[in-house]
Amino acid sequence: MTGPRYTELSKALPASVPFVGPETAERAQGKGFTARLGANENVFGPSPKALEAMAAADIWKYGDPESYDLKIALAEKHGVAPENIAIGEGIDGLLSYLVRLLIAPDDKVVTTAGAYPTFNYHVVGYGGDIHTVPYVDDKESPELLLSKTREVDAPLVYIANPDNPMASVHGAAKMQSMIDNLPEGATLCLDEAYIEFAPEGCVPKIDVSHPRVIRFRTFSKAYGMAGARVGYAIAHKDFIKNFDKVRNHFGMNRAAQAGALAALHDNAYLEQTLENVHEAKARIAKIAQNNGLVPLPSATNFVAIDCGRGADFAKAIVGALGALGVFIRMPFSEPQNRCIRVSAGTKADLDLLEKALPKALKCAEKETA
Amino acid sequence: MTGPRYTELSKALPASVPFVGPETAERAQGKGFTARLGANENVFGPSPKALEAMAAADIWKYGDPESYDLKIALAEKHGVAPENIAIGEGIDGLLSYLVRLLIAPDDKVVTTAGAYPTFNYHVVGYGGDIHTVPYVDDKESPELLLSKTREVDAPLVYIANPDNPMASVHGAAKMQSMIDNLPEGATLCLDEAYIEFAPEGCVPKIDVSHPRVIRFRTFSKAYGMAGARVGYAIAHKDFIKNFDKVRNHFGMNRAAQAGALAALHDNAYLEQTLENVHEAKARIAKIAQNNGLVPLPSATNFVAIDCGRGADFAKAIVGALGALGVFIRMPFSEPQNRCIRVSAGTKADLDLLEKALPKALKCAEKETA
Repeated sequence: MTGPRYTELSKALPASVPFVGPETAERAQGKGFTARLGANENVFGPSPKALEAMAAADIWKYGDPESYDLKIALAEKHGVAPENIAIGEGIDGLLSYLVRLLIAPDDKVVTTAGAYPTFNYHVVGYGGDIHTVPYVDDKESPELLLSKTREVDAPLVYIANPDNPMASVHGAAKMQSMIDNLPEGATLCLDEAYIEFAPEGCVPKIDVSHPRVIRFRTFSKAYGMAGARVGYAIAHKDFIKNFDKVRNHFGMNRAAQAGALAALHDNAYLEQTLENVHEAKARIAKIAQNNGLVPLPSATNFVAIDCGRGADFAKAIVGALGALGVFIRMPFSEPQNRCIRVSAGTKADLDLLEKALPKALKCAEKETA
Repeated sequence: MTGPRYTELSKALPASVPFVGPETAERAQGKGFTARLGANENVFGPSPKALEAMAAADIWKYGDPESYDLKIALAEKHGVAPENIAIGEGIDGLLSYLVRLLIAPDDKVVTTAGAYPTFNYHVVGYGGDIHTVPYVDDKESPELLLSKTREVDAPLVYIANPDNPMASVHGAAKMQSMIDNLPEGATLCLDEAYIEFAPEGCVPKIDVSHPRVIRFRTFSKAYGMAGARVGYAIAHKDFIKNFDKVRNHFGMNRAAQAGALAALHDNAYLEQTLENVHEAKARIAKIAQNNGLVPLPSATNFVAIDCGRGADFAKAIVGALGALGVFIRMPFSEPQNRCIRVSAGTKADLDLLEKALPKALKCAEKETA
């Protein structure tokens, strides 16, 4: 018997995964990681109030398909109307909806080589044609992105500010200039997943009168709820309304909705988290320096560390640290893949990192000698 | 400034919702429901072990993108390989992936008029062309579905067994015959969301050597975890592998994964739930009869009640019960929309239903006189 009749598009797709999960890596190496510092999760976890709300969430009921209460609270926080907010299954889920709305096969999409792979996964999945520009000084470049967007007449351009995996950031003025110079017909996807960790002055004004700027925020990073899958988009109400055409209306986990709402109201906890992350990053930087490596400035909850040689060396460090129980990741593209990427950890996590890094470096040196 | 450049397909889509959530209805009527008996949720909730596992799930971590542990357990339960299982964000999420894999604009899809609307929502969303056949004796008809599939040469045909909204069911032999007569080139989507409530002898053999039969199960119904969003597909491994092309790899809620795994291992609780549901349905049937209405046989966790007149009367009952604090729903299509649909409830829920139904009937009679 023959198999299903797949669409031409899905026949052409690879059975891929944007990146390998830590559990997969643990199973592959036959033992678990002691320090989980590779997925830019937030080891300090969610507010106890969020945990409480999740436990009390009547999980036998479907979530409210409008995520109404959470939407109202987010609208208030950002000084916009509820009609300017779309809530979804993490930024990943929302990026999928965005791409589906805008990208048909062969439509062009512009991003930075080595930027967020899950965005690319969705673009490829809908048959989009990805055009990349390089990092400039380890930053995504608004100028290059815009000029490429103009050049190929792309309906969609992606930038993350702050950036992952390099932890760099642009100031608000630079980002505002990108918005102001966005070509007619192009939509700017501004991924602000890490924005809460950035220094003051990196958030261009939220202006929902612009019809083609969509910003993404998440509860996965600063709010410590990666496993809950709550992200949201802020945009013009006509743009937001279009998500109702394609989203999985009953797709939100009810406990996640309740947890996000409670987390949003616990500012003291958020402040404490940001301080914890700040301290952890300072220690990661010091550990790097003590080992002759160069930590890059970080506006996120992780540190990109320049290991001073090529990708093979960085890759060997990632492998050796993994074998020593420390899960980290590294950038995908040249020349960013001279770096390793270490997420903020607990004191115990970083004690282990401190102990393991010199050994891992020796291993990596031997391996790449 | 102009808006985003939407694809031709998304421009043509309505900003729709498969159906209105109870919270939306509550906000519309300005007060909450006391008995929530409209969404076929399971008021008896999840196993305490599932609740415990969800609370202990380290929600700061992303879920395992392979849902490995849960997949292994499900494979064991069904006597198949892990490669035969795809886990997703509820059956709804998986249906979306299935349709995306198989349906390009204008591809034909066959289903029953008035069957699960979220399936249709996804088909429309990918530009599919829905062809329907009618219910026969309040059952979805394998014969009509297959003949229509042949007639229009559809790559995809949907059936739910047991059925929602009519609660009817076919025996295994009937379903096996549908599988055996599936036309070459057509994929059978067999939605078994309610199968745990069905009497013995309604499950055709799980045969993962068939390349074009895909079955869907869920933790939303018998396992009482609708708000968690965990469903799974069972199919040939080549078919399952294709889901990796389009699914949101990091889309699963980590607590939901853990909860589902724990629920799966608590058979005693499941048995108790099935008994509770059985009793609740018997009482719903009795309440219906005491009010001169005709409950239909139920193989699910809800009862379809024939109200003996047209859709207007049933609709008036739904409205009147809602105003009295009892949330129920009704079928969408003629002649099934002569019925109302009441989910199994707690004793308190059904006490309220018993009290409210005579009043609601009077209201509805007046309204439709």
